[in-house]
Amino acid sequence: MEQLSVGLGDRSYQILITHHGFSGLSEELQRIQFPGKVVIVTNTTVLPLYGSLVSQLLTESGYDVEQIVVEDGESYKNAETLNTIYTRLIELGCDRHSGIIALGGGVVGDMAGYAAATFLRGIPFVQIPTTVLAQVDSSVGGKTAINHPLGKNLIGAFYQPWAVFINVATLETLDQRNVLAGIAEVIKYGVMFDETFFSWLEEHVEPLLSLDTEALAYAVRRSCELKAEVVAADERESSVRAVLNFGHTFGHAVEQLSGYGTVLHGEAVAIGMLVAANVSRLMELCQDSDVERLTRLLEAFGFVTQPPPFSLEDYLAAMGRDKKVHGGILRFIVNVGIGESRIVSLEDPESVFKSVLG
Amino acid sequence: MEQLSVGLGDRSYQILITHHGFSGLSEELQRIQFPGKVVIVTNTTVLPLYGSLVSQLLTESGYDVEQIVVEDGESYKNAETLNTIYTRLIELGCDRHSGIIALGGGVVGDMAGYAAATFLRGIPFVQIPTTVLAQVDSSVGGKTAINHPLGKNLIGAFYQPWAVFINVATLETLDQRNVLAGIAEVIKYGVMFDETFFSWLEEHVEPLLSLDTEALAYAVRRSCELKAEVVAADERESSVRAVLNFGHTFGHAVEQLSGYGTVLHGEAVAIGMLVAANVSRLMELCQDSDVERLTRLLEAFGFVTQPPPFSLEDYLAAMGRDKKVHGGILRFIVNVGIGESRIVSLEDPESVFKSVLG
Repeated sequence: MEQLSVGLGDRSYQILITHHGFSGLSEELQRIQFPGKVVIVTNTTVLPLYGSLVSQLLTESGYDVEQIVVEDGESYKNAETLNTIYTRLIELGCDRHSGIIALGGGVVGDMAGYAAATFLRGIPFVQIPTTVLAQVDSSVGGKTAINHPLGKNLIGAFYQPWAVFINVATLETLDQRNVLAGIAEVIKYGVMFDETFFSWLEEHVEPLLSLDTEALAYAVRRSCELKAEVVAADERESSVRAVLNFGHTFGHAVEQLSGYGTVLHGEAVAIGMLVAANVSRLMELCQDSDVERLTRLLEAFGFVTQPPPFSLEDYLAAMGRDKKVHGGILRFIVNVGIGESRIVSLEDPESVFKSVLG
Repeated sequence: MEQLSVGLGDRSYQILITHHGFSGLSEELQRIQFPGKVVIVTNTTVLPLYGSLVSQLLTESGYDVEQIVVEDGESYKNAETLNTIYTRLIELGCDRHSGIIALGGGVVGDMAGYAAATFLRGIPFVQIPTTVLAQVDSSVGGKTAINHPLGKNLIGAFYQPWAVFINVATLETLDQRNVLAGIAEVIKYGVMFDETFFSWLEEHVEPLLSLDTEALAYAVRRSCELKAEVVAADERESSVRAVLNFGHTFGHAVEQLSGYGTVLHGEAVAIGMLVAANVSRLMELCQDSDVERLTRLLEAFGFVTQPPPFSLEDYLAAMGRDKKVHGGILRFIVNVGIGESRIVSLEDPESVFKSVLG
């Protein structure tokens, strides 16, 4: 089992990465003194795959285990589902000394984490992410949230887990489309922080496409390392953490305009990253060749790279609701070449996106 | 203007106490670099009294001011009202660089504070409490929450304000019943921490009953001092902060069984404190004379001291849902004499309350 540390003072925690199933989980929970009463929050898809297995393992280790099962999908990451989680926690007699385990993808992790952050003003929780997206991004760093009808992730909290337990073997049961969508976030770390990692990805398209466990494990570990560094430097996204939103400002607009769930988050981020790279080129912060490298890599993984044909006005309006807007100016994350990043202020977003979207 | 400090590292803030209206507010907001876009959250009762005045003052100082007005009352401190606040914040174009001012009593402060804690994962906020209860208790310390149909304050967050601005003159427009209800929390500080202050209260029943500004100001300041010390020592209620719940375990049961809003929070706490003092006497942690002193002081302020005639089973069930329960054991806060406190574990709550409630 590999261990990475997220250094956040008294909120520090370990990310554990293994290929060997969930066998080390009980020991890890005992090591971090996780409460004896545990509620596993999962969804209808993950429940039959890993829910019973994890429950059984923990029960055998002496844990008092309960389950809360929610519907699968981004469209359920809302106030209504959250309220059913609260009600069930109360009915189960949970108190401040109960813990939540989020078992599933980004939707389960965000929502169960937010429930843990806000139930009785915060109870312990652990992330067990089962998708690429959740393993490389959403389970690490303490961002929890639900969607509001007017926008994605608008309601949330920064709330760190007590541990993140990543079993890479769970990716074997993930459908190809979701695996690939998660790769978009992996590529993001290369573009933003690490040209060497970007090159490694260019050289490992084939093993990643065929879900080779070792290749996936390396991609997950390197992504978590890079994310952990950024989160440790800026937990609450006052500065450098914002660059993790590369591709997300435009990506969220794509998701919102398409209707949540139609386009997967990673697929929207792939489109958003290329739009951002074109903005970067327009500002002469990267070369044509950098945009071409990114395009080639995304296409090699089968990503659609053309934005859906919504109007410029629709895109601008959708980005205007995005939480990264400040005044009339749009703060926007761009790559600088490949491997570096910058936050820029677009004073006239309309003309920039008109130029970039054609 | 008097200043007290709540020492919480990078989340430290000032409590400002004044009799001189809101004139120093703009300067204070500028001093703490509070955002230029401000949304005042208040209710229909406070709006005509102070809402327009505070809005106008801030507008004249160059602030961009908006208002969100909610219905008055504990029964509106729920997920539905919270959602209307979120929606309005989004419609107003609020972003991470907007701030919320909670102007009102405990309900407004708890709910606006929770909205600030969770909108875009946290935006700046300032408390301007206008009731005794809010000035001496709920505005200080960062406890924010809403109620759930199954219990009070079950959904919430620890989220510190950037400042608390207490204008004692606002108590002049508060009805007598609400002023007195707030005095219950003031008495609590005396019983838990400071016999000298308890004696001062015994000697100042008359001026407090007649709403003498100087007496009220002293009671508010001393209460805030005591609370600030406790919060600084234990922000997240892992230990000593729990003693601030003296009278609240039973008090919440009284509120819940009576139906929220029928009995005021302070009135329920008064009943709860006397029940707790009787538990203390039963455990030989205080004398008959201490219980009599507390009874006399509460009665001097006109509090009902007899619990409403619900059954023992109802009370136990209502306390069983309280968030301070751990396992089958009931953690309970008792006074030790007058001026000291202890957290005890009631292993057989049924027999204790049977004995105390008669």
